[in-house]
Amino acid sequence: MKIVIIGGVAGGASAAARARRLSEDAEIIILERGRYPSFANCGLPYYVGGEIKSRDKLLVAPIEMLRERHRLDVRIRSEVMSINRIEQTVRVQNLETGESYEESYDKLIIATGASPFRPPVPGIDGSRILELRDLNDADRMHTYATSGARRAVIVGAGFIGIEVAENLVRRGIDVTIVELSDQILPPWDREMIGPVDSHLRKQGVDVLLGNSVEAFDETEIGLEIRLKSGGTLDVDFAVVCIGVRPESRLAQESGIKCGERGGIITNEHMQTSDDNVYAVGDVVQTSCFVSSTPIQIPLAGPANRQGRIAADHIFGRDSTYRGTQGTAVVGIFGMTAAMTGLSEKSLKRNQLAYEKIYIHPSDHAGYFPDAQQMVLKLLFDPKTGIILGAQGVGTTGVDKRIDVLAIAIQAGMTVYDLEEVELCYAPQYGHAKDPINMLGFVASGVLRGDQPIIQVDTLSSYSAESLLLLDVRTAAEFAAGHIPGAKNIPIETLRELVSELPRDRKIATYCKVGQRGYYATRILDQLGFDAANISGGFQLWSNYSAHDNNATD
Amino acid sequence: MKIVIIGGVAGGASAAARARRLSEDAEIIILERGRYPSFANCGLPYYVGGEIKSRDKLLVAPIEMLRERHRLDVRIRSEVMSINRIEQTVRVQNLETGESYEESYDKLIIATGASPFRPPVPGIDGSRILELRDLNDADRMHTYATSGARRAVIVGAGFIGIEVAENLVRRGIDVTIVELSDQILPPWDREMIGPVDSHLRKQGVDVLLGNSVEAFDETEIGLEIRLKSGGTLDVDFAVVCIGVRPESRLAQESGIKCGERGGIITNEHMQTSDDNVYAVGDVVQTSCFVSSTPIQIPLAGPANRQGRIAADHIFGRDSTYRGTQGTAVVGIFGMTAAMTGLSEKSLKRNQLAYEKIYIHPSDHAGYFPDAQQMVLKLLFDPKTGIILGAQGVGTTGVDKRIDVLAIAIQAGMTVYDLEEVELCYAPQYGHAKDPINMLGFVASGVLRGDQPIIQVDTLSSYSAESLLLLDVRTAAEFAAGHIPGAKNIPIETLRELVSELPRDRKIATYCKVGQRGYYATRILDQLGFDAANISGGFQLWSNYSAHDNNATD
Ligand SMILES: Cc1cc2nc3c(=O)[nH]c(=O)nc-3n(C[C@H](O)[C@H](O)[C@H](O)COP(=O)(O)OP(=O)(O)OC[C@H]3O[C@@H](n4cnc5c(N)ncnc54)[C@H](O)[C@@H]3O)c2cc1C
Ligand SMILES: Cc1cc2nc3c(=O)[nH]c(=O)nc-3n(C[C@H](O)[C@H](O)[C@H](O)COP(=O)(O)OP(=O)(O)OC[C@H]3O[C@@H](n4cnc5c(N)ncnc54)[C@H](O)[C@@H]3O)c2cc1C
Ligand SMILES: CC(C)(COP(=O)(O)OP(=O)(O)OC[C@H]1O[C@@H](n2cnc3c(N)ncnc32)[C@H](O)[C@@H]1OP(=O)(O)O)[C@@H](O)C(=O)NCCC(=O)NCCS
Ligand SMILES: CC(C)(COP(=O)(O)OP(=O)(O)OC[C@H]1O[C@@H](n2cnc3c(N)ncnc32)[C@H](O)[C@@H]1OP(=O)(O)O)[C@@H](O)C(=O)NCCC(=O)NCCS
Repeated sequence: MKIVIIGGVAGGASAAARARRLSEDAEIIILERGRYPSFANCGLPYYVGGEIKSRDKLLVAPIEMLRERHRLDVRIRSEVMSINRIEQTVRVQNLETGESYEESYDKLIIATGASPFRPPVPGIDGSRILELRDLNDADRMHTYATSGARRAVIVGAGFIGIEVAENLVRRGIDVTIVELSDQILPPWDREMIGPVDSHLRKQGVDVLLGNSVEAFDETEIGLEIRLKSGGTLDVDFAVVCIGVRPESRLAQESGIKCGERGGIITNEHMQTSDDNVYAVGDVVQTSCFVSSTPIQIPLAGPANRQGRIAADHIFGRDSTYRGTQGTAVVGIFGMTAAMTGLSEKSLKRNQLAYEKIYIHPSDHAGYFPDAQQMVLKLLFDPKTGIILGAQGVGTTGVDKRIDVLAIAIQAGMTVYDLEEVELCYAPQYGHAKDPINMLGFVASGVLRGDQPIIQVDTLSSYSAESLLLLDVRTAAEFAAGHIPGAKNIPIETLRELVSELPRDRKIATYCKVGQRGYYATRILDQLGFDAANISGGFQLWSNYSAHDNNATD
Repeated sequence: MKIVIIGGVAGGASAAARARRLSEDAEIIILERGRYPSFANCGLPYYVGGEIKSRDKLLVAPIEMLRERHRLDVRIRSEVMSINRIEQTVRVQNLETGESYEESYDKLIIATGASPFRPPVPGIDGSRILELRDLNDADRMHTYATSGARRAVIVGAGFIGIEVAENLVRRGIDVTIVELSDQILPPWDREMIGPVDSHLRKQGVDVLLGNSVEAFDETEIGLEIRLKSGGTLDVDFAVVCIGVRPESRLAQESGIKCGERGGIITNEHMQTSDDNVYAVGDVVQTSCFVSSTPIQIPLAGPANRQGRIAADHIFGRDSTYRGTQGTAVVGIFGMTAAMTGLSEKSLKRNQLAYEKIYIHPSDHAGYFPDAQQMVLKLLFDPKTGIILGAQGVGTTGVDKRIDVLAIAIQAGMTVYDLEEVELCYAPQYGHAKDPINMLGFVASGVLRGDQPIIQVDTLSSYSAESLLLLDVRTAAEFAAGHIPGAKNIPIETLRELVSELPRDRKIATYCKVGQRGYYATRILDQLGFDAANISGGFQLWSNYSAHDNNATD
């Protein structure tokens, strides 16, 4: 068996290593265009920022290890120029010598990844416009960052853009982020990301939303950037991080089926439309684990596992890929944003029915020092209660809750299951009723009709005549800030003062995060009022309005 | 509806609060013997140690909150002396006034918890012998800890004993732990706890295993403790933490069915043998989620959720308790030990078939600073691959992995599912192949026959004639320490040197933690050798032997 693999990093190297474990006899050739196989793409921003000090650390499996330990024929600086599926060969160009040759294969694995998208903006090919995909890019950015650059623009506020921003700030550079959409971190829902947006700004990062670059003009001493909003920015360099495109040209040119957005189409064994050709990683279109629709989500975990599955299938095993769930996490100056499954906007896009709730628990028991608040959003099927997606933003403990929910989604669990899960509890780690249980309580309460809720984003559709806003916090909390027009009756005295409430209108109760608001609905509901609790309470309402303020910057 | 609840902390207060949410009309009476309802039992050790500075923090729901917000009739210093099931009354003694009265109920909830076990050792009732269950106990211990006590003995190395040890050390007190069994933290398996044991000793805690107290002799200035091993210890005070017993006397005396070990027996709705009487929390016997056998595991999460379920059932809802899974976590001077599901010893006790593996991953990517190693043990069904239990020991990231596995157990997942789970990955949070995936890879490999393994604890059953120990680490690693009798051939040169290996014996390969050892088995297996990898490698072997050294102290 002769296996040829194009691309020797996450998907490719994983496939190669697994293939060797499955067969000592196989001939396994990795053809890698760059100078390094198996490097840590995900570490690049942190090398630029100096958090990862030694560049060698980024070489996860150095070439000697792949050769000696796994007996792989690793050829770097070797670019595949074309695939001949009839002859079962690839044409390889040695980028050192310029020579090219044919290499035959029994099975071919395409693991070419995805390349940063470069929009057709005047000046984009200038020498001061960087991107960040490989070590070469990282070296260039590292040089800028450590040799006196003072100002930089990052185009695109996806997770790579945000990581680059943090790392340039760490180097003392003034950073402006220009983002076309109306929020940073577009995969997350906007109201969840409000706290991250504010946090970024507090660290001195300028965030320009709803804006874009019209032109890059190289000057003698730097770069002048013309913005769509008018005005210019003078910087030393720019980094373009507005997403990636599957590097599927080889596949397309050889007639292998690709999806509308360019990703190679495979079956669940990562086999393309040609039985002898597999494709894995960022270059493929997969299906969404939750909605079963085609998606392209470039993440390292899926790439690694797909590589393993392709190798398995080549050796006759029926390992299958279950689809990508979109579990992702990003650190932002000590904050954490994480998500799994579908976001609210993708649910809308897919026209799937959903219900949503928000809670604001602390990472561990409030009576133990240093408890940190987070916000969690849960999206679920309004009929069955099946969990569709979740997002979390905070500091510690967010990735833990999203991982737990990722498994719950994978297992097809419902919100009713979350009520009963039994998680680790000691005061420095969690709660006797963990935030995951709490999500279950609240969401199940909503579905059972115990917790009538009303969403912040629908409040504006009510008139003052049709809705009374009832703030059930203490008078002091109310005085410190409340939703305009709200009436204040603290939960503790609500039972005595119900006569002050109208029976001809809906009553939207709220408190800081939703718990007392819920208790108020229980009281009012049993007294015959039409009450609903604002999910996420005053805090979520504040996120929405903070965001609206930022957006008008 | 008139509901009377005996005991007003985790289970009782949760039941009361939920009952109020379900019914504004119900009369809900909490009868609590102590001075405080709803306090944080789990925070007591940290108050003693000063980590929790303010005692008020321990009052999770102060009595006024229960009265005003939830309109509960909370009566403290009110001890229930007996239950009359025919009349549906309880006899209550007011501990302030000494008066007693009958209180009638429609539904009764017993949430009396469990009390620390006091073995019949001479002198155990002395004034310098403390226990830690409630605020009263904590106050006493706090006084000792902050008024010049220099030495203390803790009897019992369960999780409360260990937490108390840490907190007394924080106060500058010399601590000796005396534990009857041959390990600390008995619910965990012994080899997992080796690193915690060493860590405790490094912090200056004296750990005496396989030992017990023969007598406590109060002296003029302190306490003399006579040990079973001979010898005495002179200390200022002692804390007895050798487990708890369900406080089920009231139930037993009124003829409600209890289990062999004293726990009240309930159905899945927390209803006792008397339809009008419910029982929740530490006082009940529940069934094990995994093995369905009766168990008594005193934990706050189950108590809280059971309280909620009892309230639900009283109001006609069919919420059910699914059994206790035994998910637990404890912090030990910055280390974390966590577990879920069955331990190996309980699997043995229940005579259930299992397979086990060990891995030693880091909490996050090794190329990112401060990656911390942990050890994970996975126990699973050798036929179906269904996960039966898991344990983890390390610093950061351990509770996260055990929580994920807790859900996997709850969902009935198999080790094959773990191969494909998609968890959060960015370098500071995890791995592209998360430790959870890695557990799946290794365990599935074992079940598929790809990863023949051999367990450290079976090595001694082989003779040198029947087994060759093959260390596949580098020469330098080998020189720094290896299993006695092992031969060293680094994995990188193994293929060239196979002729040096015997074909008439089993070959047990090993490396530091198991990965290279596994690769070696792949090579050897395909060349026709009878090879198996030592699960957990040299590191696990070292844990075993370190433990054996400690045990002989
Ligand atoms: C800066 C950065 C940060 C990231 N952070 C994270 C993160 O925190 N978490 C996460 O999950 N993911 C992250 N990712 C994404 C993750 O790195 C990718 O999803 C993953 O590497 C994809 O693996 P792959 O094998 O498909 O492609 P790659 O790892 O990109 O490998 C493809 C390789 O193919 C080679 N190649 C392409 N064409 C040819 C050809 N014709 N001939 C020969 N070789 C060729 C390329 O040189 C490249 O080395 C990050 C990516 C970047 C760039
Ligand atoms: C020091 C310590 C640390 C702990 N740490 C953890 C941890 O980290 N994680 C974890 O999960 N669990 C922990 N626990 C265990 C947890 O606190 C218990 O599992 C939980 O509190 C049990 O709840 P319960 O309602 O059954 O009993 P309790 O919370 O003990 O409440 C029972 C109440 O009933 C009252 N009572 C008893 N008899 C009568 C009577 N006849 N009349 C009136 N009142 C009566 C008692 O005074 C008591 O207040 C810890 C416990 C202790 C003591
Ligand atoms: C380094 C690289 C070549 C490793 O590939 P790999 O060998 O498939 O993966 P790992 O090193 O994680 O090892 C996994 C294998 O070791 C086994 N293993 C791991 N720990 C083990 C242990 N303690 N005991 C026994 N086996 C173990 C696993 O079972 C698995 O083998 P299997 O697939 O045959 O079941 C590849 O992942 C890579 O190139 N990574 C860098 C690029 C990248 O991922 N970038 C994106 C993220 S920054
Ligand atoms: C304090 C105590 C009385 C609280 O009981 P509780 O009200 O049942 O529990 P919580 O305060 O956690 O609140 C849970 C309720 O609030 C709701 N809730 C929580 N957050 C919410 C939010 N953001 N929006 C809407 N509802 C919310 C939940 O749905 C749940 O209501 P439900 O059961 O009707 O579904 C009880 O837990 C207790 O006594 N604890 C201290 C003792 C103890 O547990 N010791 C051991 C551990 S140290």
